[in-house]
Amino acid sequence: MRIKEHARAIGYIYNRRAASLRTSRSGIIGVVVHDIMNPFFAEILRSIETELDRSGQTFLLSNHYDQLEKQRNFLDTLLQLGADGVIMSPAIGTPPEDIQMAEDNGLPAVLIARSVPGVDVPVFRGDDAFGTALATNHLISLGHRRIAMIGGTDQTSTGRDRYQGYLSAMNSAGLPVAAHWRIPGPRTKQAGFEAATQFLAFKDRPTAVVCWNDLVAIGLMNGIARAGLVPGKDIAVTGYDDLEEAAIATPALTTVWNGQREVGRRAARVLLDRLNGAVVETHQELIKPELHIRQSTARPVSDR
Amino acid sequence: MRIKEHARAIGYIYNRRAASLRTSRSGIIGVVVHDIMNPFFAEILRSIETELDRSGQTFLLSNHYDQLEKQRNFLDTLLQLGADGVIMSPAIGTPPEDIQMAEDNGLPAVLIARSVPGVDVPVFRGDDAFGTALATNHLISLGHRRIAMIGGTDQTSTGRDRYQGYLSAMNSAGLPVAAHWRIPGPRTKQAGFEAATQFLAFKDRPTAVVCWNDLVAIGLMNGIARAGLVPGKDIAVTGYDDLEEAAIATPALTTVWNGQREVGRRAARVLLDRLNGAVVETHQELIKPELHIRQSTARPVSDR
Repeated sequence: MRIKEHARAIGYIYNRRAASLRTSRSGIIGVVVHDIMNPFFAEILRSIETELDRSGQTFLLSNHYDQLEKQRNFLDTLLQLGADGVIMSPAIGTPPEDIQMAEDNGLPAVLIARSVPGVDVPVFRGDDAFGTALATNHLISLGHRRIAMIGGTDQTSTGRDRYQGYLSAMNSAGLPVAAHWRIPGPRTKQAGFEAATQFLAFKDRPTAVVCWNDLVAIGLMNGIARAGLVPGKDIAVTGYDDLEEAAIATPALTTVWNGQREVGRRAARVLLDRLNGAVVETHQELIKPELHIRQSTARPVSDR
Repeated sequence: MRIKEHARAIGYIYNRRAASLRTSRSGIIGVVVHDIMNPFFAEILRSIETELDRSGQTFLLSNHYDQLEKQRNFLDTLLQLGADGVIMSPAIGTPPEDIQMAEDNGLPAVLIARSVPGVDVPVFRGDDAFGTALATNHLISLGHRRIAMIGGTDQTSTGRDRYQGYLSAMNSAGLPVAAHWRIPGPRTKQAGFEAATQFLAFKDRPTAVVCWNDLVAIGLMNGIARAGLVPGKDIAVTGYDDLEEAAIATPALTTVWNGQREVGRRAARVLLDRLNGAVVETHQELIKPELHIRQSTARPVSDR
């Protein structure tokens, strides 16, 4: 620290570009996700950053917005900079070759949140099917029989798994599922807010909704309130992720804790282990979600 | 594109480290803010990214969490990488020398959101005093006489300016301001939620609150609702920033549009202009905020 302070004082700037040609490590780790505006990723990023800080690695961040070309440009930039590794939530449709190409050129990768079939790198994500089954079973145990699922897409492993978890819980309980009760859509508050109108107009309106994530659930609850109904009383709502704001929403949101900080911490640790030459198992590790019950879920009105 | 695709296919990786020793531009621009988890910065970052994408620059992002040492490490990293420039929201207490040192070593800087006295670089921020005066005057025009201000700190230029705007509007209207009506604190939903308890216990409780930003306002409204009162009816609340979620909050939040996308766009443009050799004026440019009136502000209950 004193030497560094002194170096700053005399205006000496260490030239990492020249130095990194002589050594094998650049001290840079890239992180690329769909969108840092999603607090789910912001929470993962913060735990990755904490781990990387501890090891003195610099954190180079980018969004791909599910555009393969943007993701490829970022991977190319990391390769050109001689980055030490990359942690990525792969864009929809990422071919295994894109990740293999990075690996083959000396850029080890660790995946978070989504897997890519056919590529042999460590993956850390929540057990999404288990998580939505937890939320659906909680609603069933309260007496709900008609349960909708709002938000998300079937184009990602996460989306498919969350829908399967809901479906299998409904099937196990012998409850019918109407196709139109599934309203897919973006994973945002705005999308949840807009879905409220469609949902509230159903003639066979469900009494409860499993939402794709907390953002959709909070938006939906706002839309239900705007229509003059009371979310949590008139319509039971569950979220997914347990973002910091779930506990302070009105009503406080029942949701599925998704282990995002744990995902970030473990992904960073295993990448650092790989850089330090450790042999790392490349299988997928599923973090077990937990149900956090709050005020947004109650028995159906007809039961009270 | 075809040449690049072909290069990918044969596994050729352009080595930017070697190349950047021969050319003067690295194609990298650094961006450092307090905390990307704040959607205010996420919205600025997205508009910066859109501009930089258009010019083919790579976006290197970091948080400083108002820690000078973290900010210095990031600036050092950018210098070591030979980055072309930096856009920064400076950490609390940033000495002008830290920015001057970057400039002197060939890393041009543009400031956003906060200014640093004594340093001669372009600054883009909202006119904060004008903005909180807009919100305060709106509440006064509705008939409110006792108005609190919740959230924020006087340690930053933004914090001081927002408080001054509120104070000057109250003074101009001849309204007294009790010292305890100012509840400073973090700029988060959690802080707004927690401040509700303290605010609601005041014996001379104000009928309206000017909040430091939308996050504090949404948290405060949730806290007011949790206590059994109706935000927007029993207590009028204003936010600041006009985040995307302000319009879908319950009630929809009256707030001050802060031009965050405009701040990001202009900061990126002027930095790119500097890189292209244009002579750029280094004065501070204040974006004029606008009041967006929604459901969270009404006349005081005693007037109805």
